[in-house]
Amino acid sequence: MQVPSPSVREAASMYGTAVAVFLVILVAALQGSAPPESPFPYRIPLDPEGTLELSWNVSYVQETVHFQLLVRELKAGVLFGMSDRGELENADLVVLWTDGDSAHFGDAWSDQKGQIHLDAQQDYQLLRAQRTREGLSLLFKRPFGTCDPKDYLIEDGTVHLVYGILEEPFQSLEAINVSSLQTGLQRVQLLKPNISIPALPSDMRTMEIRAPDVLVPSQETTYWCYITELPDGFPRHHIVMYEPIVTEGNEALVHHMEVFQCAAEFESFPHFSGPCDSKMKPERLNYCRHVLAAWALGAKAFYYPEEAGLAFGGPGSSRFLRLEVHYHNPLMIKGRRDSSGIRLYYTATLRRFDAGIMELGLVYTPVMAIPPQETGFVLTGYCTDKCTQLALPPSGIHIFASQLHTHLTGRKVVTVLARDGREKEIVNRDNHYSPHFQEIRMLKKVVSVHPGDVLITSCTYNTGDRKLATVGGFGILEEMCVNYVHYYPLTQLELCKSAVDPGFLQKYFHLVNRFNSEEVCTCPQASVPEQFASVPWNSFNRQVLKALYSFAPISMHCNKSSAVRFQGEWNLQPLPEIISKLEEPTRHCPASRGQSPAGPTMVSIGGGKG
Amino acid sequence: MQVPSPSVREAASMYGTAVAVFLVILVAALQGSAPPESPFPYRIPLDPEGTLELSWNVSYVQETVHFQLLVRELKAGVLFGMSDRGELENADLVVLWTDGDSAHFGDAWSDQKGQIHLDAQQDYQLLRAQRTREGLSLLFKRPFGTCDPKDYLIEDGTVHLVYGILEEPFQSLEAINVSSLQTGLQRVQLLKPNISIPALPSDMRTMEIRAPDVLVPSQETTYWCYITELPDGFPRHHIVMYEPIVTEGNEALVHHMEVFQCAAEFESFPHFSGPCDSKMKPERLNYCRHVLAAWALGAKAFYYPEEAGLAFGGPGSSRFLRLEVHYHNPLMIKGRRDSSGIRLYYTATLRRFDAGIMELGLVYTPVMAIPPQETGFVLTGYCTDKCTQLALPPSGIHIFASQLHTHLTGRKVVTVLARDGREKEIVNRDNHYSPHFQEIRMLKKVVSVHPGDVLITSCTYNTGDRKLATVGGFGILEEMCVNYVHYYPLTQLELCKSAVDPGFLQKYFHLVNRFNSEEVCTCPQASVPEQFASVPWNSFNRQVLKALYSFAPISMHCNKSSAVRFQGEWNLQPLPEIISKLEEPTRHCPASRGQSPAGPTMVSIGGGKG
Repeated sequence: MQVPSPSVREAASMYGTAVAVFLVILVAALQGSAPPESPFPYRIPLDPEGTLELSWNVSYVQETVHFQLLVRELKAGVLFGMSDRGELENADLVVLWTDGDSAHFGDAWSDQKGQIHLDAQQDYQLLRAQRTREGLSLLFKRPFGTCDPKDYLIEDGTVHLVYGILEEPFQSLEAINVSSLQTGLQRVQLLKPNISIPALPSDMRTMEIRAPDVLVPSQETTYWCYITELPDGFPRHHIVMYEPIVTEGNEALVHHMEVFQCAAEFESFPHFSGPCDSKMKPERLNYCRHVLAAWALGAKAFYYPEEAGLAFGGPGSSRFLRLEVHYHNPLMIKGRRDSSGIRLYYTATLRRFDAGIMELGLVYTPVMAIPPQETGFVLTGYCTDKCTQLALPPSGIHIFASQLHTHLTGRKVVTVLARDGREKEIVNRDNHYSPHFQEIRMLKKVVSVHPGDVLITSCTYNTGDRKLATVGGFGILEEMCVNYVHYYPLTQLELCKSAVDPGFLQKYFHLVNRFNSEEVCTCPQASVPEQFASVPWNSFNRQVLKALYSFAPISMHCNKSSAVRFQGEWNLQPLPEIISKLEEPTRHCPASRGQSPAGPTMVSIGGGKG
Repeated sequence: MQVPSPSVREAASMYGTAVAVFLVILVAALQGSAPPESPFPYRIPLDPEGTLELSWNVSYVQETVHFQLLVRELKAGVLFGMSDRGELENADLVVLWTDGDSAHFGDAWSDQKGQIHLDAQQDYQLLRAQRTREGLSLLFKRPFGTCDPKDYLIEDGTVHLVYGILEEPFQSLEAINVSSLQTGLQRVQLLKPNISIPALPSDMRTMEIRAPDVLVPSQETTYWCYITELPDGFPRHHIVMYEPIVTEGNEALVHHMEVFQCAAEFESFPHFSGPCDSKMKPERLNYCRHVLAAWALGAKAFYYPEEAGLAFGGPGSSRFLRLEVHYHNPLMIKGRRDSSGIRLYYTATLRRFDAGIMELGLVYTPVMAIPPQETGFVLTGYCTDKCTQLALPPSGIHIFASQLHTHLTGRKVVTVLARDGREKEIVNRDNHYSPHFQEIRMLKKVVSVHPGDVLITSCTYNTGDRKLATVGGFGILEEMCVNYVHYYPLTQLELCKSAVDPGFLQKYFHLVNRFNSEEVCTCPQASVPEQFASVPWNSFNRQVLKALYSFAPISMHCNKSSAVRFQGEWNLQPLPEIISKLEEPTRHCPASRGQSPAGPTMVSIGGGKG
């Protein structure tokens, strides 16, 4: 964060006053359609200080997002927008600025040097600008897609919101460069699914899993671990929903939270409340990894489908739970206390089906690797027809939620369902995936998987900052490509993942040697990571590795648990053949383009009723 | 061609009369800008019968083409347009049609089934519709690019024009399917370069090279060969321009013409006038291959730059010339006589520089091959910095014209100039290249090549109809990738081409064996075409071949003639490294979009002044 020097601060506050004095007339509705009837269901703080707060609503019929941006202490203006990965350059922006005389609102974009330009086409439409007791409230809307090549396309999955604070007037929009502003980013799932809330059981009870009175460390990132336990003899229940409990005032601090169930093999687990990387943390807590609930910033309550619930309690499962809270404290605030956590809603009247979680994607093995300096390398893991044929019930399973997972270099994740060699539908896709923003997302539409179907999970990685190949594995510097799908009815199939056949990978290393005068040790003692580390990464070796991964047979993990396979031959399996791909939907430009103003809107902001 | 049955013909002529009766009012100018001042400099017949004739003009300032379409016998309408390779499906069309009551003119497109739809955005703008003594004349204009995804982008190089004749009214545009119409295509260079005509010498003389009174065979394709000779003792001259002489009435029949000089090694050549594939053609005529002039349909005069001319006559060059005329006679017209040819303009006052022709691209060798069933496989030939450093004069050479050449599967050709590893400019590019339309094209802008520059020529092939690999070579079923560049001042460098190192190709065949259980015979007796023929073309072998061609060292032909190399080491040369690519120009949508009508225009056509 850039803290302006005192003199700049003073000047800014002076300008701010000037602007506030100038903008005294109330403007009710500027033009275009009225704001939506319902209040804004989603809300998120943008900056760590909570000066900017965004609320929004999604209309899938109009393919439009309505935004309400609350600016608590308006200085000389504000910018807000979206970009591929949260960078302030090449961003799609809306800017409220003043030249000292009047205030303007315009759809703009920043170039790769961070300079701001007005869009030729104005797609953010200001609906209301109003002073309230809390601050300036701007109401505006934008279609998902605009057909303006400078604009961001609002898609399912993660959206990187960006903001900036203008501390002084600018003679023109072009005079603004984002590098001179206080800026930041916030990740959010903007297009929340429009799911009707399932009927909840009348005997529903709640349980709050929260670490009481944590003293949040004054460091940017803390993962707090807290162990709690279910009452002795707590019988089998179904979790039917859960929601976050965030301590008031800490909304910008609590980034994400997860509740895990510990392994049933151990009789008991030691109590603990402290940073997860603490030396004091008991070793055994590493066995608390079975996800019960997961929440991330901007998410609301999670509901199980009406006919299913997640079993917990009862014989055969551990009474011990681990809560993990990720505190994001970039301002290094000291002395803040927090008791955030997750509230589970559960019922003793078991629903018809148990819900389950299945792992799709790649096996955690070094044979799947990404060369260094790649900006969009794709690895793909398969759940083959042979495995679903064997392991799924005749009526199939229904996937209702999904959590995508990679380590640090993951940039996109997608799972596609294919049937008879044809891609049929997307299970889940995130074109702006971030490893720093993993949440369980309810799907817009439940996806049914039948025996014989194929599930293809592809992850795109950026290893632009790596010097050596990044191999698959558990380490934070190794990679994963996983989609944890939440489904019902529960089956024995816990893992349906693949990796390239290791024998074919050895052929690759031999081939690299033939073309590169024996630089890779192919002797049996060398480990796969060692062999990858010695590949000279010229264009040929990169392209042949890609070709290998899209051609060589695979080794399947069609497993009941991480160690127990279904019976059958799973090595040297052919890659599923795809004869027809899903087409990208053709983007229709918004029909209402004619309504939009040709240039920025003059804004007068006055005291409102609020 | 589809000839309608008599009854359809009758009905059509009836309808045609009805339409003609209805459309009686003269419409002077419909809307938009006036037609350009100058008459239309370019003209071409569209159909073999010459019923449709297109004239056009190009404004590079407005990035717009003005078209004048003359319809000699209007029936119920006409369609005209452009498509990637001359297909009537997925075409960008303008349609004049009648529903029986009124006539309409609209910007439309055909889908992949040939059904016609109105464009959401009307980018062809009708300026005038007028009956003249010759027929109906439609004047309309279109910007090069429209930003409508359904529209064709008018680029440099070949454009495939398509047409169709509506024989009866249609209730709506959507009722038309191109498959039910008489349709066809015509290839043309639409964006002619806007070159100012160089000053011509006062002592300029002309010489007509034409085959007198050829009885054009009644078959679709004939290449006619005719041998003539320069006067005895004809001294050295400079050709400064040439132009086509097309016998009146045969404009749709004469497709292209070339004049070649015979080899100086032979004292004399036998006279001959007959089809080039005739058994009677003397063997020796195969030694008449040095291009002096080349013209193709739609082209106008060719001018040498003011300071250069093409030497012919005098000692050291043959007196014998071969004229080759390609007759395209799809209607199998019988008894047509033709005396078309080329008029050379030459001067005895030699200009400062001799012009020359240099071959860029790939060596004619089977080591460069295209797998079967590829729709866009790219092969690249290099003229390296080492060769230009050695062979070009310090002040460089200036390329002013270019003739692209491939055999039957060629679809695109481009030559790019690179300096210090950075692509600098495009020498010539044709994104819609057709092997059936090869002409020498003057460049819009002369390209200067300096010692140390690199010239990269890439050809894109479609082998969708082939079962085996297509290897490089001279045969019509083998492939070439050549750009004959016309330049001055003449240097000794005649050939600057490359091919992959044959040793690395052998490593490829070995690798294919390792991954595919020894299917390719890598024993030394097997020829390269035999080895390619035995490769199993799975995705891996295709991708690795691509990777090989973009990685393996090359063998350079940096030659004074096809047999004599410049001194130096030319084997196992590194591929030129390109660190920055030319960016595609950003397409600006036409600013005048607001002027265009939202739907089709009603047209009233009356008798004009003409």
